[in-house]
Amino acid sequence: MDFAPDRRSAQLTDQVRTFLHERVLPAEPVLDAQLAATPDQWSFRPVVHELRAAARAEGLWNLFLPGEHGAGLTNLQYAPLAELTGWSPRLAPVALNCAAPDTGNMELLAHFGTPEQRERWLDPLLDARIRSAFCMTEPDVASSDATQIGTRIRRDGDDLVISGRKWWSTGAMSPDAALLVVMGKTDPDAPRHRQQSMVLVGRDTPGVTVVRPLSVFGYDDRDHGGHAEIVFDDVRVPASALLGGEGDGFAIAQARLGPGRIHHCMRALGTAERALALAGERARTRVAFGRPLAEQGVVREWVANARIEVEALRLLVLKTAWLMDTVGNRQAMTEIQAIKIAVPRAVQAILDRVMQLFGAAGLSGDQPLAEMFAGARALRLADGPDEVHLSALGRAELRP
Amino acid sequence: MDFAPDRRSAQLTDQVRTFLHERVLPAEPVLDAQLAATPDQWSFRPVVHELRAAARAEGLWNLFLPGEHGAGLTNLQYAPLAELTGWSPRLAPVALNCAAPDTGNMELLAHFGTPEQRERWLDPLLDARIRSAFCMTEPDVASSDATQIGTRIRRDGDDLVISGRKWWSTGAMSPDAALLVVMGKTDPDAPRHRQQSMVLVGRDTPGVTVVRPLSVFGYDDRDHGGHAEIVFDDVRVPASALLGGEGDGFAIAQARLGPGRIHHCMRALGTAERALALAGERARTRVAFGRPLAEQGVVREWVANARIEVEALRLLVLKTAWLMDTVGNRQAMTEIQAIKIAVPRAVQAILDRVMQLFGAAGLSGDQPLAEMFAGARALRLADGPDEVHLSALGRAELRP
Amino acid sequence: MDFAPDRRSAQLTDQVRTFLHERVLPAEPVLDAQLAATPDQWSFRPVVHELRAAARAEGLWNLFLPGEHGAGLTNLQYAPLAELTGWSPRLAPVALNCAAPDTGNMELLAHFGTPEQRERWLDPLLDARIRSAFCMTEPDVASSDATQIGTRIRRDGDDLVISGRKWWSTGAMSPDAALLVVMGKTDPDAPRHRQQSMVLVGRDTPGVTVVRPLSVFGYDDRDHGGHAEIVFDDVRVPASALLGGEGDGFAIAQARLGPGRIHHCMRALGTAERALALAGERARTRVAFGRPLAEQGVVREWVANARIEVEALRLLVLKTAWLMDTVGNRQAMTEIQAIKIAVPRAVQAILDRVMQLFGAAGLSGDQPLAEMFAGARALRLADGPDEVHLSALGRAELRP
Amino acid sequence: MDFAPDRRSAQLTDQVRTFLHERVLPAEPVLDAQLAATPDQWSFRPVVHELRAAARAEGLWNLFLPGEHGAGLTNLQYAPLAELTGWSPRLAPVALNCAAPDTGNMELLAHFGTPEQRERWLDPLLDARIRSAFCMTEPDVASSDATQIGTRIRRDGDDLVISGRKWWSTGAMSPDAALLVVMGKTDPDAPRHRQQSMVLVGRDTPGVTVVRPLSVFGYDDRDHGGHAEIVFDDVRVPASALLGGEGDGFAIAQARLGPGRIHHCMRALGTAERALALAGERARTRVAFGRPLAEQGVVREWVANARIEVEALRLLVLKTAWLMDTVGNRQAMTEIQAIKIAVPRAVQAILDRVMQLFGAAGLSGDQPLAEMFAGARALRLADGPDEVHLSALGRAELRP
Repeated sequence: MDFAPDRRSAQLTDQVRTFLHERVLPAEPVLDAQLAATPDQWSFRPVVHELRAAARAEGLWNLFLPGEHGAGLTNLQYAPLAELTGWSPRLAPVALNCAAPDTGNMELLAHFGTPEQRERWLDPLLDARIRSAFCMTEPDVASSDATQIGTRIRRDGDDLVISGRKWWSTGAMSPDAALLVVMGKTDPDAPRHRQQSMVLVGRDTPGVTVVRPLSVFGYDDRDHGGHAEIVFDDVRVPASALLGGEGDGFAIAQARLGPGRIHHCMRALGTAERALALAGERARTRVAFGRPLAEQGVVREWVANARIEVEALRLLVLKTAWLMDTVGNRQAMTEIQAIKIAVPRAVQAILDRVMQLFGAAGLSGDQPLAEMFAGARALRLADGPDEVHLSALGRAELRP
Repeated sequence: MDFAPDRRSAQLTDQVRTFLHERVLPAEPVLDAQLAATPDQWSFRPVVHELRAAARAEGLWNLFLPGEHGAGLTNLQYAPLAELTGWSPRLAPVALNCAAPDTGNMELLAHFGTPEQRERWLDPLLDARIRSAFCMTEPDVASSDATQIGTRIRRDGDDLVISGRKWWSTGAMSPDAALLVVMGKTDPDAPRHRQQSMVLVGRDTPGVTVVRPLSVFGYDDRDHGGHAEIVFDDVRVPASALLGGEGDGFAIAQARLGPGRIHHCMRALGTAERALALAGERARTRVAFGRPLAEQGVVREWVANARIEVEALRLLVLKTAWLMDTVGNRQAMTEIQAIKIAVPRAVQAILDRVMQLFGAAGLSGDQPLAEMFAGARALRLADGPDEVHLSALGRAELRP
Repeated sequence: MDFAPDRRSAQLTDQVRTFLHERVLPAEPVLDAQLAATPDQWSFRPVVHELRAAARAEGLWNLFLPGEHGAGLTNLQYAPLAELTGWSPRLAPVALNCAAPDTGNMELLAHFGTPEQRERWLDPLLDARIRSAFCMTEPDVASSDATQIGTRIRRDGDDLVISGRKWWSTGAMSPDAALLVVMGKTDPDAPRHRQQSMVLVGRDTPGVTVVRPLSVFGYDDRDHGGHAEIVFDDVRVPASALLGGEGDGFAIAQARLGPGRIHHCMRALGTAERALALAGERARTRVAFGRPLAEQGVVREWVANARIEVEALRLLVLKTAWLMDTVGNRQAMTEIQAIKIAVPRAVQAILDRVMQLFGAAGLSGDQPLAEMFAGARALRLADGPDEVHLSALGRAELRP
Repeated sequence: MDFAPDRRSAQLTDQVRTFLHERVLPAEPVLDAQLAATPDQWSFRPVVHELRAAARAEGLWNLFLPGEHGAGLTNLQYAPLAELTGWSPRLAPVALNCAAPDTGNMELLAHFGTPEQRERWLDPLLDARIRSAFCMTEPDVASSDATQIGTRIRRDGDDLVISGRKWWSTGAMSPDAALLVVMGKTDPDAPRHRQQSMVLVGRDTPGVTVVRPLSVFGYDDRDHGGHAEIVFDDVRVPASALLGGEGDGFAIAQARLGPGRIHHCMRALGTAERALALAGERARTRVAFGRPLAEQGVVREWVANARIEVEALRLLVLKTAWLMDTVGNRQAMTEIQAIKIAVPRAVQAILDRVMQLFGAAGLSGDQPLAEMFAGARALRLADGPDEVHLSALGRAELRP
């Protein structure tokens, strides 16, 4: 249970930290300006492409991906890097081609894709020539209960025909999202977790309609491709578009969730660190009733409690990473659930207090806090609401 | 300490409830459509004008204003009406001409205005021909500490010349906001609470520049006139534009805050009730893992705790209203502080849990919850952050 | 919904307050000394008898009991009096003959007793010549689920024969507790809430064995008769000992719970007020790191939040009392549940923070706080754990 | 940052676990019986001596003490052992001669004692022939502020003369506590942290009066020697009784606090684990309203949240241990503060919920929970209240 960064991780951490402070953070106001100038666009703004080129030139690229196709880091090696990208959630992950949902989709393709599938979709994703979306959640059912999925995938000769409605397909508003990974039911009569399959669908396939964007606390996340509602109306793809075998959909989704969740948690800790850094600056300089906020006992308590939580939860994230690396994602399920529950809610609470420290400015676009808050809040629902995980974790704990 | 509604209040409550359910709630999607069609506009959309006409025709108009100029209700009579408007924060208050910041400004004009000031500004406000903004908060100082205000108002012959920068001037993005009520320092050497004065400034006065809109989370509140940053650059008004006497600014601001705070709290309780009504509907119909959410113990606990909090806090708000009516706003200061602290944070927490019940839909524009959350969150900062009030209340409580 | 005290209540409140400060609080150290001198005794110490004589002489007697047998106050009239007794939970309620469980038992006898039962048991209780206990909770089952009660009451000719094991029979360690009110099942095959009956059992009836005392945290409450485990081994009483009719046990227990719960809540608020008074004294006089605790922001926030909670919850308790007085206990069930949940947990949290203010002294017998904490903590379980009430309240709230 | 137990630690952990389950837990009811039989005794009961003999025979002795005098374990090696002793706070630590305050006093003697001091006091303590107490806290001042200490130590020729009043001297009610380690001021005019000195005082020295025992939530802890108030009235000891040099008192106290705090936290985690084990048993077997408690969603959430907190905090404790082992106690100060704050309050909250699961039994002596709660609650004050540590930690965090 050794969490210390090894030499490679330590060196990459230094590099990413420098890149963050020298390139990414200064690019944030540039992004704001470019967004203001192009309000109707859903694809990346120029500043993203510039950062990507710079990152790639430094070798800071596809760091999230273990194995031969990516940087080949372990989860433990990747953890401090992902955390640093959480300081600038809008820019750092995409700059390093380490942004959800592409990360999860690339993992799936790397693990489960055929050579043809990898060539068609993984290579351009690794190369950042296209983006992708993951189409799982549906408006009409509690998607954390996979048996309820309403999208149907039926065989018709050598084709698969997909019908259904998905939403919260992150990134899919962007025309660059060429690939849609779609989960649906191939066999409603199969056992509970063998009913689902996953299909790779090109965005331009007839019958695919991107209906509308969804917003999170008023943010449409258009710099990232937003969140789309999509209708699949008798969308026809060849059977070779199936990812894995028929009935593997649930298992593949689960495989995707482990790394996805830990990456979210790693980044969320970085977000908390950014917020604490901002809080420190604010508290040292803002004076009210004759004293800087940093001398108010209440502010000190907030900050102390935040520090304690972040330290404890980071260790739990590192342990989870270490378990995933050593005994596998499946054996680390309890820990993955634990951090999935604990980290976003802690970070949400920390952001709430730091916003309070900034006054109304903290709620506005002048600070990154409110948008970070929306992101942390959304994490408590993404990949299943906290309550589902708490219930599962509690049930396991209460087993004799 | 009798909180029961009298006959007039009970009858108005019925009327407002009917108006809410028959006119206002059905108008919400209409507003959404009109907003989508006119993204660049900051003034009211047609649906607001229609609702206003309907409300006025029914006598549901200026209910907030005690005394001869308004409906003449007591705070206790107004409380259930204001609560009902909180069910639809974007539409109901404006429909009844009971929306901040106009309400507070009308109160000031009614209390402190000269006949000329009332004729010029109060009458059109009561008549909803113009809107207004309150310019108090400044970007560079902790505005809850009134001694720090940086805007200067200097006398020059018969004129007053105003220089400074304000922000979070709610409503001021709208061209209809013809009146800006501006707080500044006339005498930095006077005693602490006699340094400030308040001036009535026409929006079109030379030197007034509306710099930019501010957003709360991702909402720019453009249906309401948004929140503006405004620069006053040697803005010259006649001395008759002074509201009250020189040095009265702090006292006038305080007078404005009492009713403003209790109105916010009343409405926030209505927001919580709306959220609980939505929660009930959702919980009864949404099925996960084989049972409606309403049968989950965790959901029941949430809802039970929310009900308890709302009931207890409503009584505290009513008591505060009763105190304001019977012994005056000044004597009710402790209770006003108490509800100002307790209600928004309770409502924020309730909204957070109800959003969780709705899954990602709860964060989006498909439900009113996230925007309501942003509003409740902002209330914890508006008119002074919770911490300032907690500190004052605690100090008072600890006095021997 | 008028909560203002009427003239009689206001006058009694003044009287009880004076009695509390002049007689009861000074008697606390006397009780401590008498307890230390007689460690093996479970009945009242002399100081209690002296206080009782004084209270009775002043007419402060049986104030809890509505109707002809007691002082005839409404719940709303009694509320401020009960609150004041909560300042000194060990002495004030017994001094005024207003202490549980005698209060609840007297209510039952007054409502449901036959003239003979009233003569035998109610008169001496009203007169404080005997005490009583209520034997409902059982060690082997979740007693909040009345269908699980294991004690059996079978008819044998003109007798009833009781067998079972009870515990947490408060007061029953005292030899003065001459009356045991016992709940048991007369007909396990009757409908759910008609299976139970209630019987009046003399403590000296053969077959009654008081097995052992139970403690709450480290307190055995021997000044009050403690909490007993009692075995009923074929205890034979005449059929005339039945309280109400056969099968009425559940309904009678429910009737007892309403007033019992609100009395507990009223007193608990008084306990919180005492704690806040102690907190104030401590905070003003204790100096750490150069300042009195009263000047620490964190302490101010604690005290402010406590004040807000107490004010809001007191209003909810008063509303509950008013409902019980006007529409009846049954119609007030939701409010009774609400305060039963909300008040003890709030008071527990307040006591926890006040103890923190006192340092280790707060945990010791030098301050009343830790024993008060144990009492508030126990209230979260007495008459059903919080969770049972939250679930019921949530279910009701979620009904369409 | 490797937290995995090495071979020695793993083997000792197995041994201690077996000892705990086979010897210690079964001895708890024996202790209860012996306590009931000898209510007036403050020294160890026979069962303790038997356990000690057994533990010593197995080599489970003085495990807490690093270096040559004890078992020589690192903090990281000791952590899992100390945690296991927290399962039975009354018996396991004393059985292994690893109980506070002897542990801290032995550490001081090992680090700072002269050979003569070590021979006189350390050897019999290591051998468990005597016990000891630490006399630092005073009734009249906030002892977390060392400058306020009122006890005076003045030189008189070759002697030191001690005058003052101490309380919360844990263990000192026992006649076996032969050694009192007393902190006092030798030079009130020296710099802030050089005013204090520490002296070794035999319990039987003239002028030492043990005034009275103090209780914690009604527990007098008489099985452990309780908590004493002690008066030192011109107590005369030779100058050779000084521990370290004059003015070293504050530094020595600080040196004692690091290990003391982490030991408390390790044990507290074990207490939480015991509570969770009990909770599981209870939840699986207790049925209410037709289902075992383990199937209630609310119970599952409690248990899940408890598991998450325990896992995260254990890692923080292990990191702290690792830091103390590798960079030293001083460098680990932030982490020591963090766990000192976070662990006891988390454990207190967990115990509160587990007690709720047990109903009234959870508050009584039938379960260890309430006494464990009292212990965890006391830890939030021992060695300085949470608030002092939060303030220090927050101040450090807010430094630029």
